[in-house]
Amino acid sequence: MTVSSAPGKLYLFGEHAVVYGEPAVGCAIDRRARVTVERRDDDRLQVEARDLTLDGFTVEYSGGANDQLDVNVPTPLVEAAMGYVDGAVEQAREAAGAPDAGLDLIVESEIPLGAGLSSSAAVIVATIDAAARELGVDLPAEEIADRAYRVEHGVQDGQASRTDTFCSTVGGAVRVEGDDCERIDDIPDLPLVVGYDGGAGDTGELVAGVRALREEYDFAADTVGAIGDVVRRGERALAEDDVEEIGRLMDFNHGLLSAIGVSSRSLDAMVWAAREADALGAKLTGAGGGGCIVALDETPGAQTALRYTPGCEDAFRAGLDRDGVRAEG
Amino acid sequence: MTVSSAPGKLYLFGEHAVVYGEPAVGCAIDRRARVTVERRDDDRLQVEARDLTLDGFTVEYSGGANDQLDVNVPTPLVEAAMGYVDGAVEQAREAAGAPDAGLDLIVESEIPLGAGLSSSAAVIVATIDAAARELGVDLPAEEIADRAYRVEHGVQDGQASRTDTFCSTVGGAVRVEGDDCERIDDIPDLPLVVGYDGGAGDTGELVAGVRALREEYDFAADTVGAIGDVVRRGERALAEDDVEEIGRLMDFNHGLLSAIGVSSRSLDAMVWAAREADALGAKLTGAGGGGCIVALDETPGAQTALRYTPGCEDAFRAGLDRDGVRAEG
Repeated sequence: MTVSSAPGKLYLFGEHAVVYGEPAVGCAIDRRARVTVERRDDDRLQVEARDLTLDGFTVEYSGGANDQLDVNVPTPLVEAAMGYVDGAVEQAREAAGAPDAGLDLIVESEIPLGAGLSSSAAVIVATIDAAARELGVDLPAEEIADRAYRVEHGVQDGQASRTDTFCSTVGGAVRVEGDDCERIDDIPDLPLVVGYDGGAGDTGELVAGVRALREEYDFAADTVGAIGDVVRRGERALAEDDVEEIGRLMDFNHGLLSAIGVSSRSLDAMVWAAREADALGAKLTGAGGGGCIVALDETPGAQTALRYTPGCEDAFRAGLDRDGVRAEG
Repeated sequence: MTVSSAPGKLYLFGEHAVVYGEPAVGCAIDRRARVTVERRDDDRLQVEARDLTLDGFTVEYSGGANDQLDVNVPTPLVEAAMGYVDGAVEQAREAAGAPDAGLDLIVESEIPLGAGLSSSAAVIVATIDAAARELGVDLPAEEIADRAYRVEHGVQDGQASRTDTFCSTVGGAVRVEGDDCERIDDIPDLPLVVGYDGGAGDTGELVAGVRALREEYDFAADTVGAIGDVVRRGERALAEDDVEEIGRLMDFNHGLLSAIGVSSRSLDAMVWAAREADALGAKLTGAGGGGCIVALDETPGAQTALRYTPGCEDAFRAGLDRDGVRAEG
């Protein structure tokens, strides 16, 4: 039996624009997906998914084609999650030269599904690592990241960026621009607070919406470019540990994301709750449309304000996780 | 006794960016300020201000230096309003060659103060017209607009745009770019709905905030430029009577205004309420920070949704007013 875990992440800057070659900065957080893999005697796969979110719902699922899902989350999310697991197992089998290896998998996660915290990347990365090790192969980080990206790319119809899978694999903060991924080594410990509305956006639809706006309007393309400029300035603010400027830039980044149509009522309500509680800045994270915001606040103010905000289901402090994928006990 | 009235207005596109030479499109609405002027035998001024908003507060004020204000609105707003009246009377006296003419004035308004509907421009324009006529001079529209602009420019420390005073003078929809003001003649009757949060932003502070962002960050200057591009596209959509596109562009414009820091929690809540009630688009109007939003909706949906939105004090349908300043009674 082999167990691996990998962290979720949030975007400090640059989601959506990264699809068009702009840089983005992501940051692994101390909420993890954990995958347990055990070799079977036959060639079958069985996947048991547990706690695929923070609170409120649990999924029990067995991978057999005719098994019933016992689910109280939107079925498309669960199907997507299972698609990621299947793709990850395929990558591990290929890497281990064992295309017919049967496996039992248990997937557990502290990361809300489809909510902008890269739950899928964390599940894929942990699955590839655990399954490959169970099949006798220790994959280097860059291969895990690359194989994980291929899975996301396949499931998401070619819309994925490398940010999620790279960040989940190597941990810490990362900078991604096109296919170039690097770790940012001197990242400060930022006082991150996450607000979660209990929902999830439709990444494919949101990405397609931005694409359509960009094709229709030059100023939408300029707005995507402005996000890239915010990111570049944000990198400098991170290097200088200037948290006040990081906050201002997060605010600006959120406004530009609103302009390209990927915010939502509850995301904006959470962003304002954090700001009015004197957070240094706040923005949505990930594809948007619902899910999570991230705020910068050293005091308990933003978290408290979020907990009293209608539409906010959970608020928690998120620590930077400097560990990427790792073997567990 | 002479009575004039002049309309308030809202920005369809381009507030804030107009300060930096980008075009803006404003639209006079059927909420008016009404000013009654009567010549006195002495050289004194007396101003009585009534109902300087929609609901909720009333001002009684006599212009004598030692008179008490009986006020339940923020005093700075009332002082600002009185400053506008004083400046407007001075312009009328100058135009009439009667620098020492004493006047009694009654100012009434259906336009919320400082809330993005150009209450001050409407009061100035109606005051100049009524006072000049009471002093025997019929001023042409362009002179009223120009003198009214000088008053706003003086009171607002040189931050004013010509949009408000020009639009209030000539009525209908207007396009302003720098000092060039023109009326847009073939404007469709747009299904405008206004939501009002009962508050008011500090225009000077908001304009200064945008200026500071613009000086600090190139991408903020680009964002202001993108607003100009939205306006140009909006002009085309207006000319083509394409209300769906007008709505999309209003949404985009609002996001860019959020990015430059002039939205607020209640403005965003109202914008989302209107959008989720299937308005074609919604944005803040005016300086922001609080006050009003404008939505585009042919159905009663947005107005109803706004009335049930916490933080929205009033919601009303606003008709395009094709009349500018005019003699009453």
